[in-house]
Amino acid sequence: MMKFDLTLRVLLERANQLFPKKEIITRDYSGTFRYTYADFYKRVNRLANTLKELGVKPGDRVGTLAWNHHRHLELYFGVPCSGAVLHTLNLRLSPDQLAYVINHGEDKVIFVDKDLVPLAEAVKEKLTTVKHFVVMSDTEELPASHLSPAASYEALLSKASDQYDFPDIDEWSTAAMCYTTATTGNPKGVEYTHRGLVLHSYTAALPDALNISESDRIMPFVPMFHANAWGLPFVCTFLGTTQVFPGPRPTPEDICAVIDEHKVTLAAGVPTIWMGTLNVWETGRYDHTSLRALICGGSAVPRALHKAYLDKLGLPIIHAYGMTETTPVVLVCNPKSYMQDMNEDDKLDLASKQGILVPGLEMKVVNEDGNEVPWDGRSMGELLVRGPWIAKEYYKEPERSKPAFADGWLHTGDIVNVDPEGYCFIVDRAKDLIKSGGEWISSIDLENTIMAHPAVLEAAVIAMPHDKWVERPLACVVLKEDHRGSTTADEIIHFLTDQVPKIWLPDRVEFIEEIPKTSVGKFDKKELRQIYADVAAVEA
Amino acid sequence: MMKFDLTLRVLLERANQLFPKKEIITRDYSGTFRYTYADFYKRVNRLANTLKELGVKPGDRVGTLAWNHHRHLELYFGVPCSGAVLHTLNLRLSPDQLAYVINHGEDKVIFVDKDLVPLAEAVKEKLTTVKHFVVMSDTEELPASHLSPAASYEALLSKASDQYDFPDIDEWSTAAMCYTTATTGNPKGVEYTHRGLVLHSYTAALPDALNISESDRIMPFVPMFHANAWGLPFVCTFLGTTQVFPGPRPTPEDICAVIDEHKVTLAAGVPTIWMGTLNVWETGRYDHTSLRALICGGSAVPRALHKAYLDKLGLPIIHAYGMTETTPVVLVCNPKSYMQDMNEDDKLDLASKQGILVPGLEMKVVNEDGNEVPWDGRSMGELLVRGPWIAKEYYKEPERSKPAFADGWLHTGDIVNVDPEGYCFIVDRAKDLIKSGGEWISSIDLENTIMAHPAVLEAAVIAMPHDKWVERPLACVVLKEDHRGSTTADEIIHFLTDQVPKIWLPDRVEFIEEIPKTSVGKFDKKELRQIYADVAAVEA
Repeated sequence: MMKFDLTLRVLLERANQLFPKKEIITRDYSGTFRYTYADFYKRVNRLANTLKELGVKPGDRVGTLAWNHHRHLELYFGVPCSGAVLHTLNLRLSPDQLAYVINHGEDKVIFVDKDLVPLAEAVKEKLTTVKHFVVMSDTEELPASHLSPAASYEALLSKASDQYDFPDIDEWSTAAMCYTTATTGNPKGVEYTHRGLVLHSYTAALPDALNISESDRIMPFVPMFHANAWGLPFVCTFLGTTQVFPGPRPTPEDICAVIDEHKVTLAAGVPTIWMGTLNVWETGRYDHTSLRALICGGSAVPRALHKAYLDKLGLPIIHAYGMTETTPVVLVCNPKSYMQDMNEDDKLDLASKQGILVPGLEMKVVNEDGNEVPWDGRSMGELLVRGPWIAKEYYKEPERSKPAFADGWLHTGDIVNVDPEGYCFIVDRAKDLIKSGGEWISSIDLENTIMAHPAVLEAAVIAMPHDKWVERPLACVVLKEDHRGSTTADEIIHFLTDQVPKIWLPDRVEFIEEIPKTSVGKFDKKELRQIYADVAAVEA
Repeated sequence: MMKFDLTLRVLLERANQLFPKKEIITRDYSGTFRYTYADFYKRVNRLANTLKELGVKPGDRVGTLAWNHHRHLELYFGVPCSGAVLHTLNLRLSPDQLAYVINHGEDKVIFVDKDLVPLAEAVKEKLTTVKHFVVMSDTEELPASHLSPAASYEALLSKASDQYDFPDIDEWSTAAMCYTTATTGNPKGVEYTHRGLVLHSYTAALPDALNISESDRIMPFVPMFHANAWGLPFVCTFLGTTQVFPGPRPTPEDICAVIDEHKVTLAAGVPTIWMGTLNVWETGRYDHTSLRALICGGSAVPRALHKAYLDKLGLPIIHAYGMTETTPVVLVCNPKSYMQDMNEDDKLDLASKQGILVPGLEMKVVNEDGNEVPWDGRSMGELLVRGPWIAKEYYKEPERSKPAFADGWLHTGDIVNVDPEGYCFIVDRAKDLIKSGGEWISSIDLENTIMAHPAVLEAAVIAMPHDKWVERPLACVVLKEDHRGSTTADEIIHFLTDQVPKIWLPDRVEFIEEIPKTSVGKFDKKELRQIYADVAAVEA
């Protein structure tokens, strides 16, 4: 067979050659913007010429601090197809973290949305490698800012030629990179090769994965700065699929309006967003019937959310699982053909799992001794994966890479069980699991059970060190306003007694005002562990 | 991203790990045989151990002379996954050609179906590299034959261990090979790499290609000895799809019975077979409603066949195009989303085209000067393709490879036009095209027009050399019995006058008894050209 590199250029050229009339739509600053793949292609060529003008060379990193829109899509192709590396920047990072990832990635140019200019301004003094800022808006006018040197994206593109000869690129070249926030220390960078992104596109589109075709109209609500927006911009361009972008700062109401107006067939996002849109859809103000499904990942989709969507809107949520290190799609939850006759309860149980491995990857689930655990739906172990779109290391972090990528497998840090059909269920993060006397206790399970108590608003469970049992659970509970002072720890324990194994019962229940949260709204257990480090030490 | 080779082992292991209960079904010698992917996997392991016992080493070629059945599927995986090369032998080759390809491929072992043993016996004296014959049937008994040394497939497998540790294989290793019959000279070998077969599997399964999922029940009628049975055995195993094999010497009646009994959803074959099954289905004896479509390629699907299937059975035929050199899928004809409103006539016109390029390949259409022709639905040129599952050369044929693979493109030898939407229509084989005074005349178009004359049974058009026009068309016409002696050449020319451009009108019409055919039933124009070489020379 021919030596023919798997590169993003093939995806880009195909869209232009076969689907020049198909559309890309953005909810832009000043209303709906729409253009065709033919227009898109010309602008990607203009962008490639612009990058050359700015002195960007093959292998240089180009940062983007941007929402989901067609300009970001242009960067998704213009940067890697000209040989440079797209570095998507998480606009929710703290200024220190943002400066760190730009400097560590050695970004040469930063493309920034006009309303995100303050973020760039906040870190500009700390940046050591950036030579240019390019501000993106829907006009050629350059907004006033303290960024320097700065230029307007639209002005640069309008001056550039729409003819560019995309170079032949080795498929093992880095096309893009993204940093993942670490539990300790600085964010860690993940590099994506052209090969990995192309193969990931094939897999994501398969009927048994996300089932994407040219006839779809797809909206990634998942940010383009996060794990390639689950690869959707690449898949859709490959197939000539209509792309609909929600643009800057979309609210749940905006999402519903965009889905209605542009007849979106498939939208992708984290559970939180679909909790918000459910309320909007329930008002009946927006039509959702163009949707065939929602894709949901990033964190576990509660069973209740699956049920609410099915009961109230007749809309299935497709559960998927991945992480920055995996491009990201690893698991997708579609029932097998012979499972179609399951009753509604079993279907919901299945939908609550993260799914089965997509074609092309390999997985195993191992216990602390490195032995594989049986696929019995109960035995827990860490999920290990390997394959062509799984990272092999963290960027310029040989020491931190060793444990995560030991023996040629990515150690996901996720504790799962696998049922006999191969469906994985994420039980806990490895670091949050409580290891008590050789048994594993899922902090998530315990939290969910506590949160079902009528007096409880929120609960987070962490491990306390213990002399005999190694670790024991400590429950941090926030009571609802009207129960504060009246509900006791004993009541909580009593409530749990029939619902969890005896050894799961927390040794301590601490009532607190609020559970600390991370920048993305997850429980900050690192912070909780620090707060209770002394208490635990005394107890132990 | 990890260095993770794209090999058939990943497809095989996935079927066993995630779809052990799914079935593979064969219409076997003594009735229906069915087993699960778990059983299949064990037997592939046994086969790999058997190959080792027989002295097959990595890179050795293993020939198969076999129909479509589960044993052939075992060889599809057992041979390449153990590092050897699967060489599928065309059981319709002449003995001389068969001996040539076995010797040229240097096959070490031949696996032969019991009813095909006479074919192997007919060539055995000429074979220079074969060390073993293995006879396949549904019992452990070895049928009497003159093959030596010979063993029974079932006996060998029953003795072998069902545990085998499949080796890591470089994705650029050859997994399989197949010879294509050449218009002149010996058959030419095409090698398929693991990488190419895996990528082809991804593409074939895509919603916009053949749209294959686990829930399908697929029957390849296209022979497994021909271009990987269009890749279906690999795709289906990858996805855990139910596979249904028609077994030895299936008639159209057998095909219809198997589709009915096993509720096949998608079947693939050449137009001839679907012409035959149409008559059977019209009797109403077999149910076809499990089918969602037929896939048809190998030669052009007549518009009338599309229409007959739609009108009589409500069943669409999906036109596809490829060749031995292309693994084979290159074009598939699915209408784009915005074409759904076409009227029935336009839909049939579209269905009669070979389709658009599948994701991952690149194409261009060039005239004799090597310049690309416009995509206007009229301009003709040769189709050139390149990509990860396109051959780069003919096996051990450097001289013959040069013109076919010049400049990194496969020159398909097919003359096509491309409409503005990118749909290709095959006008003629390059060698059959008549080049008259700078204009190209499609021999196929002219033949089809002549064959519409009520007195004509068959017609083949070839080029005669001509001093002024370089070439001019000569029509060889077979009249129906009751028109012989009464219909004249002038009548044929008159019939054509309003239907084709004036320069297309044949210079000669020769009435003949029968049109010579090749081993696969196509018009043998090479033979016709020899017959008329002198006539033409005199005329010119």
